[in-house]
Amino acid sequence: MAEAAQTLDGWYALHDFRSIDWGAWKQLSSDDRQAAIHEFLGLIEKWKGTEAEKQGSHALYTIVGQKADFMLMLVRPTMEELNEIETEFNKTKLAEFTIPTYSYVSVVELSNYLPAGEDPYENPQIQARLYPTLPKASHVCFYPMDKRRQGNDNWYMLPMEERRSLMRSHGMIGRQYAGKVKQIITGSVGFDDYEWGVTLFADDVLQFKKLVYEMRFDEVSARYGEFGSFFVGNLLKEEAIARFLHV
Amino acid sequence: MAEAAQTLDGWYALHDFRSIDWGAWKQLSSDDRQAAIHEFLGLIEKWKGTEAEKQGSHALYTIVGQKADFMLMLVRPTMEELNEIETEFNKTKLAEFTIPTYSYVSVVELSNYLPAGEDPYENPQIQARLYPTLPKASHVCFYPMDKRRQGNDNWYMLPMEERRSLMRSHGMIGRQYAGKVKQIITGSVGFDDYEWGVTLFADDVLQFKKLVYEMRFDEVSARYGEFGSFFVGNLLKEEAIARFLHV
Amino acid sequence: MAEAAQTLDGWYALHDFRSIDWGAWKQLSSDDRQAAIHEFLGLIEKWKGTEAEKQGSHALYTIVGQKADFMLMLVRPTMEELNEIETEFNKTKLAEFTIPTYSYVSVVELSNYLPAGEDPYENPQIQARLYPTLPKASHVCFYPMDKRRQGNDNWYMLPMEERRSLMRSHGMIGRQYAGKVKQIITGSVGFDDYEWGVTLFADDVLQFKKLVYEMRFDEVSARYGEFGSFFVGNLLKEEAIARFLHV
Amino acid sequence: MAEAAQTLDGWYALHDFRSIDWGAWKQLSSDDRQAAIHEFLGLIEKWKGTEAEKQGSHALYTIVGQKADFMLMLVRPTMEELNEIETEFNKTKLAEFTIPTYSYVSVVELSNYLPAGEDPYENPQIQARLYPTLPKASHVCFYPMDKRRQGNDNWYMLPMEERRSLMRSHGMIGRQYAGKVKQIITGSVGFDDYEWGVTLFADDVLQFKKLVYEMRFDEVSARYGEFGSFFVGNLLKEEAIARFLHV
Amino acid sequence: MAEAAQTLDGWYALHDFRSIDWGAWKQLSSDDRQAAIHEFLGLIEKWKGTEAEKQGSHALYTIVGQKADFMLMLVRPTMEELNEIETEFNKTKLAEFTIPTYSYVSVVELSNYLPAGEDPYENPQIQARLYPTLPKASHVCFYPMDKRRQGNDNWYMLPMEERRSLMRSHGMIGRQYAGKVKQIITGSVGFDDYEWGVTLFADDVLQFKKLVYEMRFDEVSARYGEFGSFFVGNLLKEEAIARFLHV
Repeated sequence: MAEAAQTLDGWYALHDFRSIDWGAWKQLSSDDRQAAIHEFLGLIEKWKGTEAEKQGSHALYTIVGQKADFMLMLVRPTMEELNEIETEFNKTKLAEFTIPTYSYVSVVELSNYLPAGEDPYENPQIQARLYPTLPKASHVCFYPMDKRRQGNDNWYMLPMEERRSLMRSHGMIGRQYAGKVKQIITGSVGFDDYEWGVTLFADDVLQFKKLVYEMRFDEVSARYGEFGSFFVGNLLKEEAIARFLHV
Repeated sequence: MAEAAQTLDGWYALHDFRSIDWGAWKQLSSDDRQAAIHEFLGLIEKWKGTEAEKQGSHALYTIVGQKADFMLMLVRPTMEELNEIETEFNKTKLAEFTIPTYSYVSVVELSNYLPAGEDPYENPQIQARLYPTLPKASHVCFYPMDKRRQGNDNWYMLPMEERRSLMRSHGMIGRQYAGKVKQIITGSVGFDDYEWGVTLFADDVLQFKKLVYEMRFDEVSARYGEFGSFFVGNLLKEEAIARFLHV
Repeated sequence: MAEAAQTLDGWYALHDFRSIDWGAWKQLSSDDRQAAIHEFLGLIEKWKGTEAEKQGSHALYTIVGQKADFMLMLVRPTMEELNEIETEFNKTKLAEFTIPTYSYVSVVELSNYLPAGEDPYENPQIQARLYPTLPKASHVCFYPMDKRRQGNDNWYMLPMEERRSLMRSHGMIGRQYAGKVKQIITGSVGFDDYEWGVTLFADDVLQFKKLVYEMRFDEVSARYGEFGSFFVGNLLKEEAIARFLHV
Repeated sequence: MAEAAQTLDGWYALHDFRSIDWGAWKQLSSDDRQAAIHEFLGLIEKWKGTEAEKQGSHALYTIVGQKADFMLMLVRPTMEELNEIETEFNKTKLAEFTIPTYSYVSVVELSNYLPAGEDPYENPQIQARLYPTLPKASHVCFYPMDKRRQGNDNWYMLPMEERRSLMRSHGMIGRQYAGKVKQIITGSVGFDDYEWGVTLFADDVLQFKKLVYEMRFDEVSARYGEFGSFFVGNLLKEEAIARFLHV
Repeated sequence: MAEAAQTLDGWYALHDFRSIDWGAWKQLSSDDRQAAIHEFLGLIEKWKGTEAEKQGSHALYTIVGQKADFMLMLVRPTMEELNEIETEFNKTKLAEFTIPTYSYVSVVELSNYLPAGEDPYENPQIQARLYPTLPKASHVCFYPMDKRRQGNDNWYMLPMEERRSLMRSHGMIGRQYAGKVKQIITGSVGFDDYEWGVTLFADDVLQFKKLVYEMRFDEVSARYGEFGSFFVGNLLKEEAIARFLHV
């Protein structure tokens, strides 16, 4: 048996994608729509409080294409909190006019393919990555992925040393995009259908394509990557929500 | 032909996942909602009686993400009882406001990759595992799985001795999680689309990820495991149902 | 080109799986529900007449889990009769409250991997199997399947003699379940998405699991079997229909 | 690069499969249903005119099982005509009570794996096949298919001569069914998800199974065939439409 | 690691496929339908203004078969503009009567498998291709695709020189269709589920089949192409919209 990589695990994450039933939304009275928007902004206000207290974070993006109209990403210290927020949102007026299209349950993860040493949980830089305040970048990209286990291309049968070496050069590509793309890896083994979720943030949306395409030629992706659906979107600032929902 | 492993089979199991149609639920009058909750609590009361008489058991968990809002897991001595409970629930008022999203039909199974000897059905420890009272752990994880039959990775073409040896070391990993994760394996060959259902219970949700991830590097999973969807959730205590359904 | 196995073909078969829209069903008046049940019992009465005249047969089972609430299996001398019965049922009141979830179109088939000789269609035992009266066993199991055509595991490239030999030992397993499990194979090449439908009948539901699991270690299944969805259910006797539909 | 086979291309084809919403259809007044049927018969009358003028053809079959209630197959000289007919049907009253379940867009194709020589488009026999009047056989069978491109089983990497030889012996099987099964091949590369659609017509429905099963042992199907869904149905004569739709 | 091909990236593209709910559309009053059409024509007018200013382009085609009733293709300098147009359309009256069936998010891409030299973004011919005015050809064909990464057929593990050479001969085929088929490649790595979208325009719809079929025998497609759904359609001119929507 190959030795399992050790992971560092931080806050739990829920990516929640929704479409809007615009036809039904338009049939609401203007007052009812205002009340629904107001209620939703109240939730966001609460989440901002949580973020200010470093007890979690959230991000809201509109999604391009028919896969969803918006994505809400939430990170929290416990799985129960994610479930409560999800249920609280589901009980709002606005939620009645949304159609769930995809969701992802995972936990912020740092992969420990590093030489042993100090306790990484004590490291402030690592803490900042495990318990992140989500960036307010102009664009988001999300996709889930697996490491392949197929015939001769079986990641989980490789010796630790080979995986470590492959991941190191894979990480090199990511590092070239430092300052352009911020990447949050969340682990979902045992939580959702794929093994990892990848959430990328960038101000220049083209950097997503450049990064993912360049990585695809790297052996880790070329031979061992299995990818789910890709979602791409634009930041939906709090002050733009009313306009987005205005009909 | 490879020799088939012998299995010990206990109670039949139904995992029933449902989403809630919150919009329609809110349109019910408060009295009607109370009556629906009361009716559902009455069912649970009945199931608790069955559990007290050691004639079955049940578990109720909320599920994180859009795959479902809650999961009801039931074990009973016969397939007919599962069918009757399912139909009885379907006829309740509450069920009108739920949307079936996934279900799994199986039977509690112990795999007999063990040296021969005494009649295992006489063993009280084995009886306790075949006819289990489901734990009230804080978290649940469920996923169905197959053993792979693909090219050179064909579990069912391996000789019994090799399968036995592989399963033994696989079991070793599980044993390291004793006290942290309780695992119930249910067999579904001939009953549902995958060959087994795995239901894990833990008070620390992160242990699901650690266990499943560590096992993935073991040859049994790495070469021979094919996994379906993963569901993760939080215990929904009887006394919390009314709050969960309060709108 | 490998020589094609000869088949004996009997009555045409339709497996029709339906869920019930219990919420809508409850909104019917009690009188309307009674009339709908009465109408459905009238259809069954007619089918019983057909069965008495040895012009076909039918079986009705409730299905466990969310895949369906019940399955209706019909065998008839012609494809037109199946189509007419299906349409007649679709026009009933009860059908308005059912949701089609799966169906399978095939023909009762005996595979002729046997030494040549007499005309099998003249053999009364074979006639009884080609034009069967469906058993009223306590449980049913249905699944469709293909023979694999993948890389080195290509059933259709094997010489006839090897297929014959593999099928013979495969049949041996089935024979050990004689008296416990009755099996009806229906062929669906050219009629539906898989190549065969397997319908098993047993009074002890666990025998389905034992049979299918034991067969899976046989090379025919291990290397060459591709399986669709599995459905398992309980006999719904005519006199229990009203109770099943009572709300 | 392997040399591409030359094809002869005739009329464009649309296979349009629909289910009927019988519940809603019954809620129409009898007069409205008659009007809807009358309108639909008017369309068919128009299509018969087109057929009489050798400007196209059509076929109408009921489909067995839940995949559809009926299939309408249309062939026309241009893609625009197919689109217009489809839209015209969609605007009818009857269409409001149908649910689209599957469609296929293709063009009647003859594969030119033949020795070179005369201009085949000048050949009256070939013209009759490229611009066919669809037969009024008792039964229809439709399925789409691909030629496999997988590992060592890659049709498109075979040299032309080998493909030609394989197709020739494949064609031999079909020829044995002359007079029993009429086959129309339509090409859909660039038009729909599979590469070909196969439409079979026969008065004895069992011949579909015999033909497709026998072909499956031929290397062209065994190693290189990838099949989509199979649909089987019964001729719906114009004079039987009112009875079929009578509720 | 293989060297990644450099790409030139132009305008962002959204392909938006919709079906029409004809039944609901007919229930609108004639005045309301006129108003809805008028509102939609207003959007198109605005898009024509953008096109005139060389700030984007659009195309509108009806789609044959049940996959969609029409496709709207939009190209714009930013992802935000695509999102805004999509949302603006979703808020229209007409959109209430459409059902989203498929969409694709990508960016116009030229693949730089060419000898190095001048800055291609300065080249007017390349500019015309990166920021295209979409042709008003009679027919459109759209499909998404991946380069395969499977066993020995792994595009991303090939050395750059081999990919370059393969793509060069692949391009030769396309060049033979110059004047008959205009091709726009859009890259979607990081944006949508496939890696590329291919949009073909032609006045003779048969050329799509000829081109795609001929290419399939080329090693790039034969060994390395994985294709998604194919959509084919007919130009819907602005002046024909009212007739198309007339009921």
